[in-house]
Amino acid sequence: MLGPDFENIVRLLSRMPGIGSRSARRIVLHMLDNKDNMMLPLAESLQKAAIDIQNCQDCHTLDTSSPCHICAAMTRDRSLLCIVENVADLWALERTGSYKGLYHVLGGTLSALDGVSPDDLHIPHLITRLDELQTQELIIALNATVEGQTTAHYITDCVKGRDIKITRLARGVPIGSALDYLDDNTLVTALDSRSAM
Amino acid sequence: MLGPDFENIVRLLSRMPGIGSRSARRIVLHMLDNKDNMMLPLAESLQKAAIDIQNCQDCHTLDTSSPCHICAAMTRDRSLLCIVENVADLWALERTGSYKGLYHVLGGTLSALDGVSPDDLHIPHLITRLDELQTQELIIALNATVEGQTTAHYITDCVKGRDIKITRLARGVPIGSALDYLDDNTLVTALDSRSAM
Repeated sequence: MLGPDFENIVRLLSRMPGIGSRSARRIVLHMLDNKDNMMLPLAESLQKAAIDIQNCQDCHTLDTSSPCHICAAMTRDRSLLCIVENVADLWALERTGSYKGLYHVLGGTLSALDGVSPDDLHIPHLITRLDELQTQELIIALNATVEGQTTAHYITDCVKGRDIKITRLARGVPIGSALDYLDDNTLVTALDSRSAM
Repeated sequence: MLGPDFENIVRLLSRMPGIGSRSARRIVLHMLDNKDNMMLPLAESLQKAAIDIQNCQDCHTLDTSSPCHICAAMTRDRSLLCIVENVADLWALERTGSYKGLYHVLGGTLSALDGVSPDDLHIPHLITRLDELQTQELIIALNATVEGQTTAHYITDCVKGRDIKITRLARGVPIGSALDYLDDNTLVTALDSRSAM
């Protein structure tokens, strides 16, 4: 018998994105074969990271300090605020290295089906920040999905009346992609928003 | 910044079977969103399991006790010994509930390419066990791959001369499978080993 801890690890791992119960078992077996250089260091790092990593009080991203290193950086353009759905999206934008403003992580998108209301997201805090920071441009970088766009429209309505320029990411053909493989909606959007060469 | 522990978790997770660095990041984010009911319990269980779960001194499977619950069970048929490559294969056989003998986990298969020699596996110990247990039938349940069969032949040679019946799992058409999708080797084997109805 492998005991309750083994079953607990399998149960917890199989609740992670992309891992089923069969691969969870394979992973635990792999770890048990490498206890000293995999299983125990992982346990230790998980414990430390759970304590050290917190949500930033300002933008709600994850960081070892609050305010996070982006909010605290004096070199960032504080007149720009970019709204993202989650931390992974913030990282994707940061990886490009071409955005130098601040962020605001919503923590999800509005969804009547899943019962996510504006108060469940960080939308009230967003409004407060916009006033405090005297933001000049608000970039909405939400997913081009129904939920993302519903949320984008809701936020636009909330911000309306303030002297803030609201923009969103451009829609069109992804770089490197073949037209043949694109969905019709993307192609129609790209055609409508065509630009002069 | 997320600190060295975050990077350490991502690095360790992405070395697990079936997890890449991108999914490792997604998993850690998911855990950071569920620290109290996911991340910390996982850390604790990993630590406990790493201490509690050991290899059985007899059959080399993983268990909280050594000898394991299979080797220690008085109800199992001690005249039967089944050789498997790894613990996952042992579990697969146990799940069927139709085998009541003992096991011997080799811990891999012979491979000249990867430099795995008989001494790296538990083959010398297998021979000792066969004599101690006075095994009457040795079932070779290794994968039907080149490495598995090389290992099977090597073991057969080692055991030769003893009064032990050596068997292997049957080859043929898997239950529920369509002939059209089977590879040629399986079909040829199934045809050669056809049985009377």
